Amino acid sequence: MVNETQHTCSASSSSKSDGGSSSGSESSKDSSRCSTPVLDADRHERLREKMRRRQDSGDKWFSLEFFPPRTANAAVNLISRFDRMGAGGPLFIDVTWHPAGDPGSDKETSSMIIANTAVNYCGLETILHMTCCNQTKDDITGHLQKAKRLGLKNIMALRGDPVGEEWEEEVDGFNYAVDLVKHIRNEFDDYFDICVAGYPKGHPDAESYEADLRHLKEKVFAGADFIITQLFFRSETFLKFMKDCQAIGITCPIIPGIFPIQGYHSLRQLVKLSKLEVPQEIKDVIEPIKDNDAAIRNYGVELAVSMCRELLDSGMVHGLHFYTLNREVATTEVLKRLGIWKEDPRRPLPWAVSAHPKRRVEDVRPIFWASRPKSYIYRTQEWDDFPNGRWGNSSSPAFGELKDYYLFYLKSKSPREELLKMWGEELTGEESVFEVFTCYITGEPNKNGHKVTCMPWNDDPLATETNLLKEQLEKVNRRGILTINSQPNINGKPSTDPIVGWGPSGGYVFQKAYLEFFTSSEIVTALLKVLKKYELRVNYHIVNVKGQNITNAPDLQPNAVTWGIFPGREIIQPTVVDPVSFLSWKDEAFALWIEQWAKLYEEESPSRMIIQYIHDNYYLVNLVDNDFPLENCLWQVVDDTFELLN
Amino acid sequence: MVNETQHTCSASSSSKSDGGSSSGSESSKDSSRCSTPVLDADRHERLREKMRRRQDSGDKWFSLEFFPPRTANAAVNLISRFDRMGAGGPLFIDVTWHPAGDPGSDKETSSMIIANTAVNYCGLETILHMTCCNQTKDDITGHLQKAKRLGLKNIMALRGDPVGEEWEEEVDGFNYAVDLVKHIRNEFDDYFDICVAGYPKGHPDAESYEADLRHLKEKVFAGADFIITQLFFRSETFLKFMKDCQAIGITCPIIPGIFPIQGYHSLRQLVKLSKLEVPQEIKDVIEPIKDNDAAIRNYGVELAVSMCRELLDSGMVHGLHFYTLNREVATTEVLKRLGIWKEDPRRPLPWAVSAHPKRRVEDVRPIFWASRPKSYIYRTQEWDDFPNGRWGNSSSPAFGELKDYYLFYLKSKSPREELLKMWGEELTGEESVFEVFTCYITGEPNKNGHKVTCMPWNDDPLATETNLLKEQLEKVNRRGILTINSQPNINGKPSTDPIVGWGPSGGYVFQKAYLEFFTSSEIVTALLKVLKKYELRVNYHIVNVKGQNITNAPDLQPNAVTWGIFPGREIIQPTVVDPVSFLSWKDEAFALWIEQWAKLYEEESPSRMIIQYIHDNYYLVNLVDNDFPLENCLWQVVDDTFELLN
Repeated sequence: MVNETQHTCSASSSSKSDGGSSSGSESSKDSSRCSTPVLDADRHERLREKMRRRQDSGDKWFSLEFFPPRTANAAVNLISRFDRMGAGGPLFIDVTWHPAGDPGSDKETSSMIIANTAVNYCGLETILHMTCCNQTKDDITGHLQKAKRLGLKNIMALRGDPVGEEWEEEVDGFNYAVDLVKHIRNEFDDYFDICVAGYPKGHPDAESYEADLRHLKEKVFAGADFIITQLFFRSETFLKFMKDCQAIGITCPIIPGIFPIQGYHSLRQLVKLSKLEVPQEIKDVIEPIKDNDAAIRNYGVELAVSMCRELLDSGMVHGLHFYTLNREVATTEVLKRLGIWKEDPRRPLPWAVSAHPKRRVEDVRPIFWASRPKSYIYRTQEWDDFPNGRWGNSSSPAFGELKDYYLFYLKSKSPREELLKMWGEELTGEESVFEVFTCYITGEPNKNGHKVTCMPWNDDPLATETNLLKEQLEKVNRRGILTINSQPNINGKPSTDPIVGWGPSGGYVFQKAYLEFFTSSEIVTALLKVLKKYELRVNYHIVNVKGQNITNAPDLQPNAVTWGIFPGREIIQPTVVDPVSFLSWKDEAFALWIEQWAKLYEEESPSRMIIQYIHDNYYLVNLVDNDFPLENCLWQVVDDTFELLN
Repeated sequence: MVNETQHTCSASSSSKSDGGSSSGSESSKDSSRCSTPVLDADRHERLREKMRRRQDSGDKWFSLEFFPPRTANAAVNLISRFDRMGAGGPLFIDVTWHPAGDPGSDKETSSMIIANTAVNYCGLETILHMTCCNQTKDDITGHLQKAKRLGLKNIMALRGDPVGEEWEEEVDGFNYAVDLVKHIRNEFDDYFDICVAGYPKGHPDAESYEADLRHLKEKVFAGADFIITQLFFRSETFLKFMKDCQAIGITCPIIPGIFPIQGYHSLRQLVKLSKLEVPQEIKDVIEPIKDNDAAIRNYGVELAVSMCRELLDSGMVHGLHFYTLNREVATTEVLKRLGIWKEDPRRPLPWAVSAHPKRRVEDVRPIFWASRPKSYIYRTQEWDDFPNGRWGNSSSPAFGELKDYYLFYLKSKSPREELLKMWGEELTGEESVFEVFTCYITGEPNKNGHKVTCMPWNDDPLATETNLLKEQLEKVNRRGILTINSQPNINGKPSTDPIVGWGPSGGYVFQKAYLEFFTSSEIVTALLKVLKKYELRVNYHIVNVKGQNITNAPDLQPNAVTWGIFPGREIIQPTVVDPVSFLSWKDEAFALWIEQWAKLYEEESPSRMIIQYIHDNYYLVNLVDNDFPLENCLWQVVDDTFELLN
């Protein structure tokens, strides 16, 4: 009878017996399980394990290759692209390494920093390329140490292009990718997953196709976990290569590199670099339409789709690697037509999970940074303890210092002229500021006909969830309650709810109503009188830029405002209103008035002085309605406040 | 305007500024706040702080003195008394020290073990008395170390009675209580709160009343935190003493010792020991009724109530200390008439919180021990990490070994004859066992006319909450689903609900439905077929005594089955179904069949063989219905199982 179920396992009948326990962990209490409930196995897996699991489940996947951009502006755009293309569900992305571009530096555009951003701020599993020829052991070790420190877990080990025409091996130097693979395994043991390059037509510098296969086998036997191939033009090329690899004993995953042709010139350039030959039948199609970009791209998409289908249909291919050339349209189109672009509206947590290995257990964040997740990740990057740690004293260095936080990817995506059009070329008083906030909420154009699609506290249009509160928000912003964050109360909606759901299916999610705004001291005075009536129901924190802080919160305890109950799990409470971190957020929230808005205007201009006045005199307020099963009372609090003022 | 509220505080305006932070803890992230939400400040306070807080708030309190019992049976009864009298809300209890009774030993009846039980198993703040004369420094240090190790935090430092009539001071020995106070402070710094004795009439051995006051002052200045007085018969005696103490500079709390006269003989004995004189007016009343116990007790209660009223009305007394003589009725009566006996049906958590300082942060327990909390505390006493720790591998020594667990206070309170009447002098088959379970549920007498008020898994009558499920429970027990633990689902009832509520007011409590039972392998086979239909909704663990374990639980994660949402707090989830600890519980649950039930019968008797058969062949099953907002489906699961069997 016991054998009827899949989940049978045998446990020791005595609590002291040695053998046969059903538990996976064999040791004593020291290795007691983490207290953080595991919501998605994914978070705890290495890339090679994810790959293996997807292969076993027959679930096809894709990955995306990008190169580091040349300018800071291009970097900001590339990161937006990471966010958008990340939504399609790539198993990983990779970032190439250009020795000439100072790839290991701290520059905004270096390979290292772009990969760091992808992992830490975009939450993407990322492979950093690294080349080794013409570099010292110390340089390479330094790069690898830095990568590890930044939370990168995967390296694509490459030789790189030697300098000059005539190249000679250095004795004891890094002459081939295999040397780098060995070095990584020697110095970093099993920390990194290592990827190496395969050449379906053989490397152009190799003595022969067979010799190149033997080199590949050496790289794998030296410790590489999987192979990504150079691009190719016919599926047979890859399938033959794969069989040849298997024939000589290469058993690790081999991922075909797919290059959707996107334009005549990029194709020519790539062919030149890779020393590949474009098949005649492709040339025949392209040459006549070489000046028609759209036509070439359509053809490229067709070609890629049909080649990918052949690969997938062969049963030998489980994942496809795309050379995107940092472009979005062609690759996305191919993926959608193949049916492997999977936008999953379901979130594992109500905020984007970072892919840094240190943060994989993170399961709670203050609500304040809801619209500025990259800023939160940046400011907490030195934390060691995420699941159980709480926010220390606001005067402690636990939060990254504010002065550092103007990283390029925390800046607005919009240029100054755009911002001026949205937020006003010239402000005439506090009311013109109220109007900007109101237009942002309503989506209506301002009096100059421009839509307000971002604010200093929120670089994106209003969240779908906030739309639920639109009407009330509009009303209060018009009257000088300048809202920057809010959520409605929710009393047990299914975790699969398209707007407010998160976490595994079969669960229920809950929220306490939350409202955060800037407002004048006059309104705060009235608000405080009104709040006396709501003393037991509403928790408030009210603070000005000087740090005068008024609150009825008990001690310094966080208030959970989002939580979820799931089958067979402990309770998850991913969002809290934390009184200590609020004081750090306050610094950031007030600074944004000056840094992002006031500085758009000339010094001593009336517009600048209006923003400066608000910065100096307004209060930042947050309100929580603890009684989540009842109708949200925060609007009543605000109405009562306005009534008292009238 | 900021000054209008009480909660104003000033915070630093920069996250790096040194001064003026609103946070209480000044240091960095290292001292980050505990992740356990503080539900009751009480749990984290020392006794002297609790005393101070109650004095400041004007909230009168009482405490209770007990002496160690002479026999193990009497100890079991005393511990039940602790549980009952603990319900009235004493600020602390104290346990006296009798040098002749091996008070520091591990005997069931020693002062040390009785105090240990009060703290750890009854959750009572406890003072352990300790005397010092005729003892070596090493003995005393040993006792104190042991007390500390057991979680005792308060010592009443006494001289004790010297041996023999003629007593001489030992040089460098412990001659007076003050020597013990100094020793505790020298060796244990500020770890213990120290209480010393005061004599409102002067100590009988002192040269004079004034000299005795000076001795008392020495004890306080040596480090005592508060004073409890010897008994007295008139409130004026105490009030004069208190004024005299204050006059010479004693400022610590002085707590009057109240002795409700409970009988003629006990009064005579006490008077003889304490060398006190009973006032003539009391003698005049008592002598004529000396053979009428009830009359004397009534008079004693009257006398105590009026004296306590005078003391409390004086405004100088904030707490009253009662010499209970290990009796319950008189003291409880006095306290109730004074209005300071406060049975608070509201629980801080759904289980009784231990008073051990190490366990004060404990906030989650497996549901399995719900009816055996003392056993759970005993078996986890070596744990270091309560709030975030989880249960390690069941084969680890994290749980106290089963073989040790037959502590006297884990045994049934009922004698063997009682148990036989309830559970059957002679069993005729499995059905007669079903009948015992059914009678326990219904409260109806068994066929021999005896009510079944306890079971091996539950030493008390059915919990009020379980009554909610009575009808269904009766039905299933009759058919051989032998339930030992259950709870209904609850979808957000107020935390003040008299039956299922717990925690501070203004909150909401939730539960997932839970059912745990023993049943035959035939029923398990059918049940498993039925459970396939409920695969996504119901989590199950099914295990037999040999440890064959069948489950659909994901990994080894605990499933939260009780949680609460409170204003301004993080989520509290005090009860979980933990797959790992279930295997330790299984050992205990199966052992109870043999140890408590089978062993009532002769070896090889049919009755014993029936219980042995059940022990060897039945399964222990637990079921959780994850869909708490819907109607509990577990009864449907059981019904479907019976239907399948028919």
